[in-house]
Amino acid sequence: MRNKTINIAVTGLLLLAVMAIADDVNVDHDIIPVELADSAVLLRERALLDNLSVEIVESLTTEVGPRRVGTDGDKRAIAWAEAKFKELGFDRVWTEEVPVERGWIRGEARAEIVSPYPHNIVLTALGYSVGTNGDLVGEIVEFADFDALEAVPEGDSLQGKIAFVSYSMADYVPEPGESRTAGYGKGTRARGAGHVAAAKRGADAIIIRSVGTDNNRNGHTGSGYGYVDDVKRIPAAAVSAPDAILIQNMLRRGKPVVMKLNMTSKITGPVKGANVIGEITGRSDADNYLVLGAHLDSWDEGTGAIDDGAGVGSMMAAAAFIGQMEQRPRRSIRVLLFAAEEIGLVGASAYYADHEDELDHHVLGAEVDGGGGRAHTLISGVGEASVPVIREMHKLVAPLGIAWSDANDATGASDMSVLGRAGMPALNFMQNSNDYFMYHHTPNDTFDKIIPEDMRYLTAAYATMFYLAAEMEVDFRD
Amino acid sequence: MRNKTINIAVTGLLLLAVMAIADDVNVDHDIIPVELADSAVLLRERALLDNLSVEIVESLTTEVGPRRVGTDGDKRAIAWAEAKFKELGFDRVWTEEVPVERGWIRGEARAEIVSPYPHNIVLTALGYSVGTNGDLVGEIVEFADFDALEAVPEGDSLQGKIAFVSYSMADYVPEPGESRTAGYGKGTRARGAGHVAAAKRGADAIIIRSVGTDNNRNGHTGSGYGYVDDVKRIPAAAVSAPDAILIQNMLRRGKPVVMKLNMTSKITGPVKGANVIGEITGRSDADNYLVLGAHLDSWDEGTGAIDDGAGVGSMMAAAAFIGQMEQRPRRSIRVLLFAAEEIGLVGASAYYADHEDELDHHVLGAEVDGGGGRAHTLISGVGEASVPVIREMHKLVAPLGIAWSDANDATGASDMSVLGRAGMPALNFMQNSNDYFMYHHTPNDTFDKIIPEDMRYLTAAYATMFYLAAEMEVDFRD
Repeated sequence: MRNKTINIAVTGLLLLAVMAIADDVNVDHDIIPVELADSAVLLRERALLDNLSVEIVESLTTEVGPRRVGTDGDKRAIAWAEAKFKELGFDRVWTEEVPVERGWIRGEARAEIVSPYPHNIVLTALGYSVGTNGDLVGEIVEFADFDALEAVPEGDSLQGKIAFVSYSMADYVPEPGESRTAGYGKGTRARGAGHVAAAKRGADAIIIRSVGTDNNRNGHTGSGYGYVDDVKRIPAAAVSAPDAILIQNMLRRGKPVVMKLNMTSKITGPVKGANVIGEITGRSDADNYLVLGAHLDSWDEGTGAIDDGAGVGSMMAAAAFIGQMEQRPRRSIRVLLFAAEEIGLVGASAYYADHEDELDHHVLGAEVDGGGGRAHTLISGVGEASVPVIREMHKLVAPLGIAWSDANDATGASDMSVLGRAGMPALNFMQNSNDYFMYHHTPNDTFDKIIPEDMRYLTAAYATMFYLAAEMEVDFRD
Repeated sequence: MRNKTINIAVTGLLLLAVMAIADDVNVDHDIIPVELADSAVLLRERALLDNLSVEIVESLTTEVGPRRVGTDGDKRAIAWAEAKFKELGFDRVWTEEVPVERGWIRGEARAEIVSPYPHNIVLTALGYSVGTNGDLVGEIVEFADFDALEAVPEGDSLQGKIAFVSYSMADYVPEPGESRTAGYGKGTRARGAGHVAAAKRGADAIIIRSVGTDNNRNGHTGSGYGYVDDVKRIPAAAVSAPDAILIQNMLRRGKPVVMKLNMTSKITGPVKGANVIGEITGRSDADNYLVLGAHLDSWDEGTGAIDDGAGVGSMMAAAAFIGQMEQRPRRSIRVLLFAAEEIGLVGASAYYADHEDELDHHVLGAEVDGGGGRAHTLISGVGEASVPVIREMHKLVAPLGIAWSDANDATGASDMSVLGRAGMPALNFMQNSNDYFMYHHTPNDTFDKIIPEDMRYLTAAYATMFYLAAEMEVDFRD
């Protein structure tokens, strides 16, 4: 694959040389030498023409599919990632075991409204929920959001009841300046802690409206923050948006709405995952490395295309493109595919624990974990003296339609933020994620949701920035 | 409800009187007397402000839900319709039994790809399919469309195989002038007859890509044309679009793709449905009636909001609005809610068999069975001498954004076309149905898909036209 791609690249590069020179005129060549800038533009343009990132997502979602940590799918994903790194010409490939203190079996989740009107209800167990141990029947009590549930005094007022948090992310009206998806955070409060809050008020179970922006008849799963000692462990599930609306329309009629819930999910003992790492080894400063992150695990009902196949594809491809250039970059580039992100950045925390004393060698990091949409804004998270350098580097991705933010508070996002918060310099490309919450954590997170042109743009942005950063001698901590 | 609504109407009517007069200037008052035209415009404007059609859909989908013929849901729907007609002030309400020669139990449909890559596959049994009688395992053989399957010589070449028709309605490119949803007909060929064609070539089962335009992880069910004597009865199912793409991506790799299919669906003995009829009895020519149709039954995985709750709501409301005017219309208006449309216009055929000798009393008919989208074009299906009359009537709905077609070949659509083809004058309002095939015949056909404003426009169009037709003395057969 490498040779073929280089041939295509060479042909493309000749054609694009004129563009490259035109692009360079505004760059300060005291910061980015002209040859380096030219190479970066040629790399960028070549990446825009190459579908590799999309092919990687297709390969992962077709040949592996769902890969929740501890499952057979996760094991296949680890083997797949090792093989794919090698196929793409990475110089070093290895895995690092990630112990996970508990596993989980999804089982089945079924529900129906028993009265006043019989209806099948579509829902999905929230991650690491206990099962119902047979049929659980209870009257539904609605709460507009997590705050409303928490406003109920602790005690037994919800005894025999099923709490229902009907907060709708889709109907959240963003504050001025907030993103279209700002309602997500508010929704994850009940998803993460609703089962504890409801249990403290005596409830037998909790259901929430799925945290998402779609109107599809599938639940959005996601992980709770776990059970708490001395608080009853109650089952937790997310109903689809149409089913949440149906239940609300029944409740509006003023009659008791009674649901029968049956979930066979089960928490198990410890399982193992692995971070998978591929390295393009630097030609002269191999021991310092830039890190491109994504998570390899996924939820288990879709095939994990946007979450986070898109991250795996764009980061593997960006590094592979750099590896396919005439010579290795000055510093190394490592692609970190993290385990067990979905249950709380477990792989990232394990990586940090194992590599804390090497943090200084991590030159710059970034992660894609928001789908395959185009990057629209670059935010740095570097030392003050490095900001002007990033500013110049940005000029070489600006033609992809990427703006610049002065915030300089990026931590790398998702798993990578574990390292970013510990002091590693970081970048974030903010992405168009308007469709992301329609599909994420659902059976609908499948390969057909990837938009190839957008993935190529995203990948080109990372390839360009990290190639520049790998070649330069800047210490981004300065 | 009637008194309250009349009060609202009266208030509205006063305010709208000026508009009405302005609207009338182009109408030929030799054909439509000025008082009648004014009343029609006032009715139209009042209907635009009244959410009754939407409330009816909400009531049906919440209080009843799925209602496939012969199921408990269907029985509840019949009782619901009778009660709703009475509540809305219809003068006469009755049911007419519809015998159906076979029933069907959906059971469960599960499938997985066994090799080369294990995957769960989301699919739904096609209506009236037999089950698999345990696990059925076979290699998948793809056919681009129904023609490609039929091109295989009859015999046993598909023995031990599962035929897969991958035709995608979503990717059909309409010919110039065709509607955006023109690919539906081509898709229904494999849905309706694929199981017979595949069995004649020895296949053990058939799966088709769901006939729809969405990318959601749910199958679109629908009815086959039944099994044929002396041809093996094989199970038939529709896979979701994402799963169809996944299977195609596996097949592209050149290795055998083996699927395990387990369906517990079952054909049963005869069942009974009923057409439910509500009448606004005419004040002076009660024995001649205009008929507004929709079908009461639905598929069983959604709650039948767009198919055909939208028809039930718009037609019931249109007639109810006419019934809430100061006096009954000259001729009667009947709303016909047909049984068992989804399995082949069975209720409509029974109605025709029972009422063939009264066909002359059916003055004009129409049906809504394409969702709740706005009407965009009016097509008549009347005698030549009546066309100019319909043309004048059209002027009073044109302000709703409705064009006029000269075709004069309408038969009333769906169930109503049984009467239309037998000679009953008919109208069709062509509707915006761009979203219709995203949801229809899926679990996703739920109330939240209804757009209230569009439903009000649709209902206003029918109320206006049928009020005019009920008041006039025209014989639309002329």
